[in-house]
Amino acid sequence: AVNGSRLWQSLMDMAKIGATEKGGVCRLALTDLDRQGRDLFVRWCEEAGCTVTVDRIGNIFARRPGRDDSLPPVIMGSHLDSQPTGGKYDGVYGVLAGLEVVRSLNDMGYVTEAPVEVAVWTNEEGSRFAPAMVASGVFAGVFDLDYGLSRADLDGRTMGEELARIGYAGDAPVGGRPVGAYFEAHIEQGPILEAEGKTIGVVTDAQGQRWYEITFTGQEAHAGPTPMTRRRDALLGAARVVEAVNRIGLTYGPAACATVGLMQIHPNSRNVIPGRVFFTVDFRHPDDAILAAMDAELRAAVAETAAAIGLETDFRQIWYYAPVKFDAACVAAVRQGVERTGCSSRDIVSGAGHDACYLARVAPTGMVFIPCIDGISHNEIEETTPEWATAGCEVLLHAVLERANA
Amino acid sequence: AVNGSRLWQSLMDMAKIGATEKGGVCRLALTDLDRQGRDLFVRWCEEAGCTVTVDRIGNIFARRPGRDDSLPPVIMGSHLDSQPTGGKYDGVYGVLAGLEVVRSLNDMGYVTEAPVEVAVWTNEEGSRFAPAMVASGVFAGVFDLDYGLSRADLDGRTMGEELARIGYAGDAPVGGRPVGAYFEAHIEQGPILEAEGKTIGVVTDAQGQRWYEITFTGQEAHAGPTPMTRRRDALLGAARVVEAVNRIGLTYGPAACATVGLMQIHPNSRNVIPGRVFFTVDFRHPDDAILAAMDAELRAAVAETAAAIGLETDFRQIWYYAPVKFDAACVAAVRQGVERTGCSSRDIVSGAGHDACYLARVAPTGMVFIPCIDGISHNEIEETTPEWATAGCEVLLHAVLERANA
Ligand SMILES: NC(=O)NCCC(=O)O
Ligand SMILES: NC(=O)NCCC(=O)O
Repeated sequence: AVNGSRLWQSLMDMAKIGATEKGGVCRLALTDLDRQGRDLFVRWCEEAGCTVTVDRIGNIFARRPGRDDSLPPVIMGSHLDSQPTGGKYDGVYGVLAGLEVVRSLNDMGYVTEAPVEVAVWTNEEGSRFAPAMVASGVFAGVFDLDYGLSRADLDGRTMGEELARIGYAGDAPVGGRPVGAYFEAHIEQGPILEAEGKTIGVVTDAQGQRWYEITFTGQEAHAGPTPMTRRRDALLGAARVVEAVNRIGLTYGPAACATVGLMQIHPNSRNVIPGRVFFTVDFRHPDDAILAAMDAELRAAVAETAAAIGLETDFRQIWYYAPVKFDAACVAAVRQGVERTGCSSRDIVSGAGHDACYLARVAPTGMVFIPCIDGISHNEIEETTPEWATAGCEVLLHAVLERANA
Repeated sequence: AVNGSRLWQSLMDMAKIGATEKGGVCRLALTDLDRQGRDLFVRWCEEAGCTVTVDRIGNIFARRPGRDDSLPPVIMGSHLDSQPTGGKYDGVYGVLAGLEVVRSLNDMGYVTEAPVEVAVWTNEEGSRFAPAMVASGVFAGVFDLDYGLSRADLDGRTMGEELARIGYAGDAPVGGRPVGAYFEAHIEQGPILEAEGKTIGVVTDAQGQRWYEITFTGQEAHAGPTPMTRRRDALLGAARVVEAVNRIGLTYGPAACATVGLMQIHPNSRNVIPGRVFFTVDFRHPDDAILAAMDAELRAAVAETAAAIGLETDFRQIWYYAPVKFDAACVAAVRQGVERTGCSSRDIVSGAGHDACYLARVAPTGMVFIPCIDGISHNEIEETTPEWATAGCEVLLHAVLERANA
């Protein structure tokens, strides 16, 4: 029903924007490359006959009218921004699978009851601007618009400034309109589907997350004449918390994840005892009570470390969302799509956060996962296959038709 | 004999170049600010009647003729470059104390037998370009000139390029000429003199050093869906080595120092398991055999960590120098200066590396330490007092006269 080679070609064309030497993509949110990716998407949508709207936080909506255009739309989507060393599929797949559904409907001359939209959500990755899923969060009313626009990167540039700079600070209000259903197709970003030989993951839940920013301040001093016992080494403190975070992840395993991904050392000079270290912690678990237990252990480890070394601590939980349960009817629509296409599948819990996690607060929401090679994502070698990509898009088409004609 | 307020005023004037908000100095080697500091020093020396020469690695020599100008000069000196968050005295004090000796000799109309020179050595700190003391090392024949000129900062700019850019790639050959004696005055950069209420440290020895560069490579992956047991987290590896380095320092203490001062995380994104971490290790000890034992423990800790996590390792010792014993006659000249001025003093081992450590290979060499408040250096709050600064300069004058008239 869908044109798999057209979908694959579009993925490869989009991957040229920000392509890295190792075959990945670096297209950070609201950079010039992100603008180029958005422009290409908008052109494709206009060529497919869609009407394109941009809202005040830069979310793009490409609309294909329904027979009754007053019905709330069924939205498909994901994001075009990437990690600094990201892959070709994370996010992009969900956007272009949505576009391929529209193109296929056009090919068939098929008119859905409700309108169908393809959405691109701004800054899903949370890498340049923390936290992740900011703009779908504003759409869903989880964050204020001002909060979203004022998110700043490590150089102090805000999302609002950067949206204006790249020409994607739109006029449309953010959210506040009825959505019939939301479906997001995505690569799994983990190893389960491939290991079990399944083509489709029917996503029933998503893990909860807590993100932290921690700054330890000790005292800069000379690495030579400063006795070990007189030091207040902020990096030693951070190192102990990295070890503690790993231990916490293992303790609450196999479903727990615990990561320190970012660290900045000050003044970062070989012969200076580090005086200040800023770092982040990312905790995930499908069970909110366990996520709270991980939080308590982290706080204890940070306090103990700071006391032992004599460090001052600035500790902030900057993001939290509870585990998500996707809408039963949307999950059923995905499962029905699997049956129609005859793919192998299994139910799965998303380890990553997705715009769908916030959309689920304001719309019946479902997700379709396809495998990725070796479970690797957030890496330039991220890979999937044209067959999986096509299968996921077909399942998406069926799920969307199910809801748009309901 | 010396003019302490003139010396202090010169220190304060030089400290304006690269002054930081917290009262410190950021004047990294071979930056525009380093050029401004050099220009000011050269102007002062010319005003004091000296002839200024710059050698091919940017070392500056300001020469005051002796009665017999064919005698090898007695050189005083240190450096004008600073740490990123450095203080007003580290290095600068030794340079300007040398200049004050020249100015005082001028005031007295005193002609020494041998000529007297004030030297500024390029890139002593080793912060922008590793290792430390590169240019005095070339002067002393420890490093090739090409090695010195090809040292690169973390952005890949070399010392040779940056010397040319700031106009301090001179014509004079580097070293290879007889030096009658070398004296370096410096703040202690540690807590001993102040704690014991002594004004002058008669420096008899300097610790040996080993510097390392280590890169751990694991695999970037998504912080969410990647199970803890499938991770190859390069930052977890680096954190374990930070803890091991601290343990090694404590094990071989109280004279041992062991520091990780610099770390770069790749890709440094909150929700990506770090795939690569580059960091440095700085080891010091006055006993070469113990320094070797520390080296062996580091290698074992790195190997064990890499094996446990599944990391690839690039391990390099990039700098080594054995503990230094300063020249008996020069140490005696400093001690005699202490007696003449009536200062309190004690013998001391330098915890920091100094250009004097390399000069000691090609010239009889001695050092004069003065206290610094709370032993703090490599920090913007680094402080000493005008009284200590004056006392150290007077001791320097006496030591220089002792050798320049010998
Ligand atoms: N899907 C995805 O990579 N999302 C980024 C936010 C997260 O780290 O969960
Ligand atoms: N004196 C001083 O700070 N030297 C820098 C080189 C070292 O770290 O020992």
